[in-house]
Amino acid sequence: MNISTNITIFGGTGDLTFRKLLPALYTMFLAGKLPAGSRIVAVGRRDYSDGAYRVLAEDWVKRFSRLPYTEERFADFAQRLVYFRMDLSNQTDYGRLDAFFAQDTVENHLFYLAVAPRYFAVITEGLKRVRGARAGKVMLEKPFGESLDAARTLNEELEGYFGPERIYRIDHYLGKEMVRNIQAIRFANPIFTDVWNARSIEAVQISALEEVGVETRGGYYDASGALKDMVQNHLFQILSIVAMERPGELSSAQMHTGQLDVLRALRPPKEYDICDTLVLGQYEGYREEPLVAADSATETFAAMRLFIDNGRWRGTPFYIRTGKKTGVRQMEVSIVFRAPRPGVEPNILIIKIQPTEGVYLQFNIKRPGDTDDLIPAKMDFCQNCNLIHQLNTPEAYERLITACIAGERFWFSQWDQIELSWNYIEGLKRRHREAGLPVLPYAPGSRGPDAAQTLLGRTGRRWYE
Amino acid sequence: MNISTNITIFGGTGDLTFRKLLPALYTMFLAGKLPAGSRIVAVGRRDYSDGAYRVLAEDWVKRFSRLPYTEERFADFAQRLVYFRMDLSNQTDYGRLDAFFAQDTVENHLFYLAVAPRYFAVITEGLKRVRGARAGKVMLEKPFGESLDAARTLNEELEGYFGPERIYRIDHYLGKEMVRNIQAIRFANPIFTDVWNARSIEAVQISALEEVGVETRGGYYDASGALKDMVQNHLFQILSIVAMERPGELSSAQMHTGQLDVLRALRPPKEYDICDTLVLGQYEGYREEPLVAADSATETFAAMRLFIDNGRWRGTPFYIRTGKKTGVRQMEVSIVFRAPRPGVEPNILIIKIQPTEGVYLQFNIKRPGDTDDLIPAKMDFCQNCNLIHQLNTPEAYERLITACIAGERFWFSQWDQIELSWNYIEGLKRRHREAGLPVLPYAPGSRGPDAAQTLLGRTGRRWYE
Repeated sequence: MNISTNITIFGGTGDLTFRKLLPALYTMFLAGKLPAGSRIVAVGRRDYSDGAYRVLAEDWVKRFSRLPYTEERFADFAQRLVYFRMDLSNQTDYGRLDAFFAQDTVENHLFYLAVAPRYFAVITEGLKRVRGARAGKVMLEKPFGESLDAARTLNEELEGYFGPERIYRIDHYLGKEMVRNIQAIRFANPIFTDVWNARSIEAVQISALEEVGVETRGGYYDASGALKDMVQNHLFQILSIVAMERPGELSSAQMHTGQLDVLRALRPPKEYDICDTLVLGQYEGYREEPLVAADSATETFAAMRLFIDNGRWRGTPFYIRTGKKTGVRQMEVSIVFRAPRPGVEPNILIIKIQPTEGVYLQFNIKRPGDTDDLIPAKMDFCQNCNLIHQLNTPEAYERLITACIAGERFWFSQWDQIELSWNYIEGLKRRHREAGLPVLPYAPGSRGPDAAQTLLGRTGRRWYE
Repeated sequence: MNISTNITIFGGTGDLTFRKLLPALYTMFLAGKLPAGSRIVAVGRRDYSDGAYRVLAEDWVKRFSRLPYTEERFADFAQRLVYFRMDLSNQTDYGRLDAFFAQDTVENHLFYLAVAPRYFAVITEGLKRVRGARAGKVMLEKPFGESLDAARTLNEELEGYFGPERIYRIDHYLGKEMVRNIQAIRFANPIFTDVWNARSIEAVQISALEEVGVETRGGYYDASGALKDMVQNHLFQILSIVAMERPGELSSAQMHTGQLDVLRALRPPKEYDICDTLVLGQYEGYREEPLVAADSATETFAAMRLFIDNGRWRGTPFYIRTGKKTGVRQMEVSIVFRAPRPGVEPNILIIKIQPTEGVYLQFNIKRPGDTDDLIPAKMDFCQNCNLIHQLNTPEAYERLITACIAGERFWFSQWDQIELSWNYIEGLKRRHREAGLPVLPYAPGSRGPDAAQTLLGRTGRRWYE
């Protein structure tokens, strides 16, 4: 048989595969985005027949597929789905995998590493036994390692074998509709393009609040914390898309260069103003969560003020905050323009990323009546507020897998971005620690510790929501 | 008795007085905007007692007052309303009027000339007999004369007696909420202020369409036409507010200077491109309207392209259109920004003046889904869509009378504005006539003759609505 695209999922019985990857692949299949002649090989340690695995998969697809599940269409999809049992740590099993592939002609390999990073090295080693694997593509997700050093080593192994151009590092926030929309909003509208700079923009706020706590992820989260879990990847990606120079063309190379330039221009954290720069918090009750250390000092909330020292942004603060148990689920970017004069509300453009996808714009008009007072006119454009749009909005994973198949690297993270962000965040944390600053407690349901408000309040600012 | 403000209305039994002035004064009374100790003296030729006139006035106030009529409150108001019978052409009657006023102490006089311009001179002459009149204020409305020469003579007489600073020429469009809002929108919002120029704005459109025909006003209208009735006053006022430089301060003197500078910078009409500049139309059936000449060549529709030859606007066309029987009642200003690239919709800001008062803004976002196509996001802010706002929006006349009492000249026309506009429009008409261009027929309910579309269409543009 001729297999045009063979998608191998390491971690085929894991949560990510069941909740995200299989539903995304099924929807791609319905939408005609899975190449003809594709096959999905779910690799796992447990013992399933193809039939048993398909029954299991069907259950998850029913629950999580974006486009409606039907028995008939799933049966078609399932014919392309097989299960391969192996032990990822056993190198001889990779020989068996190669033999399995060799029964058919596989034109293109795609490997999805839906496993913990400790398996990355052994899988890379094993794939050396699989003919054609080296010419394939690899998709993987953070965390890329336990520490920056470990991540760097893993990355060297992956790049050494596959080459940097065939590694697709997922930041699934980059698949979100409104994150991808930032570029369109910035560059397709003179009313925004022409004022996207420090002269007109007073401050930028990136806010990623969660209503939930750590839930079942306490073990992972306690070793990671808000900075590593959210800021150094997702929020720095968004920051660099908001702040980057306009690329000459919208190629992935120029995009990445633009983002890197932003990260390189981030003002290094200084000892003397670290307490005006970084606030860390931990919600009350966090240490009682399952799998969390009883004396944990891990931050579940972070707020920071950053400066980008380049011509476009000099003097305009970028505020970032993220946290768990903050009373609201809300991710948005607020562009706060300079107020025309004291006492007048600024123009505010809010790009809403989740759960609402849309754009909010506030500008000033005269208060109706015989007065020259100003009041804000508030305009809201909600993209996912009607069903048709919702159905047309592919989930991030559909989009990213489709992009990987097509070889579009635009919306994937490059290693140097990861390394720069990681380094910067480690530097911030180190300054915070060296200054003896505490991780402040905050009440569940609040917007983090009071210091997160003061961070803006002492310059007369406030967080916009 | 001590009268703080004596408002004399010449033309006290005319349409303007009954439909607009008395309802406006009654509403001002309810809203506490009529100064304590005010008196309204309606002057007319017919024989009414105060009581009879009040009964008549009550009827009109009931029908047209913005705030609710109540019998009790009207009775309070009516005590301030008296009728004075006189013949405007009889100079001795002004002596009687003076004697009437002399029964009381009148602190301030305000004279409203709600009569045809042919009475302006004789009233001015007569007021010389009224003690204290010279120190009073005069409100009057267009038409200021049958011809520019006649208007100039009348104006000289008025200004010679009262002085230029006490003449309040009404352009009631300047009292409209959203016309007064143009300044706020322009100057209180960096997203607009910073791009309000030819570099970012591709074209400006000012559109004032009416659904009705000339109705009962055929006699007046046939001698006037769309250019004189709408363009040289109302629409040129709006044009100059949209296009003026930012005044150093929002004083009436600086406002007027700014507006005058725009009118002076209007590119004079040239013979060689008059057919790309002015389109005139007449709706089919107009000549059969009551009081309209059977061979009338009066335009009921005009569309034009203007250029303002200054640094801010060089190269950006300003399109104006107005007409009767165009199928829609709609007055709005559209600011069309330069498209970011061919094939992409421009950003459009529409200031809606009537009947809806509000702001519409259109900008580009990415089409939802796995695509980089752009689609316009359309945002609407309607100011008079809810009742509270409607009740807070004073009618233009309330606002203008209130401003006149307070001595705020900001929203009144100056003579030099009128003269410049009048001259410019006469020049346009002359070029049109000399080029032998026709007044084109158009079907009632259409947007004027096809040539009004072609005026924009030949440069790839279209009218926005």
